[in-house]
Amino acid sequence: MARDPDYGAFTEKFVLQPEFSPHELPLKGLTFAVKDIFDVDGYVTGFGNPDWARTHSSATSTAPAVLAMLQGGATSIGKTVMDEMAYSITGENKHYGTPMNPYALDRVPGGSSSGSAVAVGAKLVDFSLGTDTGGSVRVPASYCGIFGFRPSHGAVSTTGVIPMAQSFDTVGWFARDPTILNRVGRVLLQLPDMHLVKPSQFIIPEDCFQLSSIPSDRITQILVKSVEKLFGGHMIKHAILGDYVKDKVPSLKHFISEENKDQEYTIPSLAALSSAMRLLQRYEFKNNHGEWVTTVKPDLGPGISERVWEAVRTTAEKIDVCQSMKTELRAALTDLLGDYGILVIPTVLGPPPKLQTDAMESFGTRNFSLLSIAGVSGFCQVSVPLGLYNNLPVAVSLLAKHVVKLGLFLIIFCAIEPYKTASRMMEP
Amino acid sequence: MARDPDYGAFTEKFVLQPEFSPHELPLKGLTFAVKDIFDVDGYVTGFGNPDWARTHSSATSTAPAVLAMLQGGATSIGKTVMDEMAYSITGENKHYGTPMNPYALDRVPGGSSSGSAVAVGAKLVDFSLGTDTGGSVRVPASYCGIFGFRPSHGAVSTTGVIPMAQSFDTVGWFARDPTILNRVGRVLLQLPDMHLVKPSQFIIPEDCFQLSSIPSDRITQILVKSVEKLFGGHMIKHAILGDYVKDKVPSLKHFISEENKDQEYTIPSLAALSSAMRLLQRYEFKNNHGEWVTTVKPDLGPGISERVWEAVRTTAEKIDVCQSMKTELRAALTDLLGDYGILVIPTVLGPPPKLQTDAMESFGTRNFSLLSIAGVSGFCQVSVPLGLYNNLPVAVSLLAKHVVKLGLFLIIFCAIEPYKTASRMMEP
Repeated sequence: MARDPDYGAFTEKFVLQPEFSPHELPLKGLTFAVKDIFDVDGYVTGFGNPDWARTHSSATSTAPAVLAMLQGGATSIGKTVMDEMAYSITGENKHYGTPMNPYALDRVPGGSSSGSAVAVGAKLVDFSLGTDTGGSVRVPASYCGIFGFRPSHGAVSTTGVIPMAQSFDTVGWFARDPTILNRVGRVLLQLPDMHLVKPSQFIIPEDCFQLSSIPSDRITQILVKSVEKLFGGHMIKHAILGDYVKDKVPSLKHFISEENKDQEYTIPSLAALSSAMRLLQRYEFKNNHGEWVTTVKPDLGPGISERVWEAVRTTAEKIDVCQSMKTELRAALTDLLGDYGILVIPTVLGPPPKLQTDAMESFGTRNFSLLSIAGVSGFCQVSVPLGLYNNLPVAVSLLAKHVVKLGLFLIIFCAIEPYKTASRMMEP
Repeated sequence: MARDPDYGAFTEKFVLQPEFSPHELPLKGLTFAVKDIFDVDGYVTGFGNPDWARTHSSATSTAPAVLAMLQGGATSIGKTVMDEMAYSITGENKHYGTPMNPYALDRVPGGSSSGSAVAVGAKLVDFSLGTDTGGSVRVPASYCGIFGFRPSHGAVSTTGVIPMAQSFDTVGWFARDPTILNRVGRVLLQLPDMHLVKPSQFIIPEDCFQLSSIPSDRITQILVKSVEKLFGGHMIKHAILGDYVKDKVPSLKHFISEENKDQEYTIPSLAALSSAMRLLQRYEFKNNHGEWVTTVKPDLGPGISERVWEAVRTTAEKIDVCQSMKTELRAALTDLLGDYGILVIPTVLGPPPKLQTDAMESFGTRNFSLLSIAGVSGFCQVSVPLGLYNNLPVAVSLLAKHVVKLGLFLIIFCAIEPYKTASRMMEP
């Protein structure tokens, strides 16, 4: 056999070199805080619970996501309080105290990345790192009146981060200033050279906004005006997301009946989505932490204890259906939005609940219905603060497919204008 | 409520800043090649099959793993041939030609990262990127006489890489020189500051070496001598891995019976592991590509076509058991090795098969039994070239738990000495 000088190894040859600009460090001069779920060399990663901290030794290396911030030139000033084992959404922690919502001291800050959101909201740092499995960046961002970004699943390394439920776990981040949100994202997503892509459409699902306790036209008006200004009003389309998802995600039928009955005003298909998401979350949580929980029997706060032990008892029943559902939802949203479309939804359906009012219960299925759209599909979502309504923070969310393909920059760029528009349209 | 100046946000405050050294770019001056499964902005990602290339448009961004290499100062010289849809292990590609094994032109190079291994083996580049789902870095590394690294699952972003089966997909890399293997790994794993940790033990499973067609003492002697030199002989322990896995991974019982009968000389528990791995791989492949395959009906080479269509027909049966098995095996190997132990196994059981001899069939269950140990557990594995035996390349593998915790450096450091020792002990 004749020896090809290239040994037949190549499909295509080209020379690809980076353009080196004598750039400044991208995060130079910024301060940040880190949720106590990330490993930092020499510190015990606390996972929100004293029994966890007591039974684990210090980390011997620093999580790559944290290292990337340091290498970008940012300075960390500490680790932040979180909900125990990341298994709540309110931010209340009976052991370490509940971080204070800077907009409303009698309201929960949202969790589980509670301290990270508060540190940004209260201007103690420029940005912070959190994690989002079922809403743990998006909810506290909304409640604390700041930006929060959940990247597409798998886009940022979760190495050195205690897992909650791997099918959904993401590393997210918070900022007050959208340009800082963007700078942090470029470093975390390793996308220094990303160009802006024009979005193809904005889809506003009427049924999702009808769930909200805040007059939905207040929110959608801001979006419509912003999109008109940036791209023209023809980009806006309306849809009924619940019916679409019901048609396109047949595996949901296994979860619809049991959810339908227990709450009014739900969107049955999205409620089923949230039910399936929480099932798979329980199952993966059990695989990760079931042995530790049953061995150590940790002291856990109200609500969290029930959820953790419910998770420990989860069986594999219906888990295979959850996997099919993920694939189907991802395909359905890809069909709906295309690579460059944006879905607009409320981040959550109302203002932050009052402290110690069993906030998790009142948070309920309807909020998780919205949060599970990005959770189950793996799409990315940015929560955009829109100012105050009745003196409490309000937010809207933009969802899109791939951070890498579509661009962090597309979605964050689209987030800035409503933020600016809101400052003129919302009260005070 | 009194307003805490820190809003109760922190668990611990400290100042953490990176040490900036005026370092050189870590990969400056190195050339590399990229498997045609990674997105490179402006090029169609071909996935080894012309029908795939024809039905997909150019990538609009570059995969973060590739970008990281460019930002590190390396220059890419092209994309490499791979097995169709990553669904083979031999490296034979009927459409684009089979890359030539630089050590033996009549032998397969191994796949599916065939061209990437050949480009390094034939000294066309300094290093290359591949992917490893079921062995696609480790096997061609062994067959082409070079180093190949499969990182722990989840440690390197797979964004911008066509998925094969997400539960197992990893981004891996090849090099001839272990110091280059190390430099590339530091950048890919974002671990510039990692310190070396001393390994706690080396476990040599006798049963795994007994499967090999190469006299096992040739290989184990090299390891023993290297470990004696580096750390002292007391670090070496022997074990029977098959029995240990059988005891510790109860879910395997669902897969043992069907595999037992069809081949001689297997280790039943590891054969079952490989059977379960291949089942989950088929199931995830179907979810990823089933629709494309049934719509496009691509022209696929012999063997690959059968495997792809078998995958498309996979049901969810037993998938839940595969998930439990992963958790159990991970726990079992953690118990066996601890955080700092190393498991030594043959990478594959014999020399590269001859071209066009239905190599995949003869590769068989026994090889996949060994490959599935890292695949199912998510542990990292480095394949170390040990020179030639009967004029054909031979390798050994080291497995360990976490790349980040344990250190790329530990495992690569431990790989260098056997490589050097081998040059004195193996023929010629």
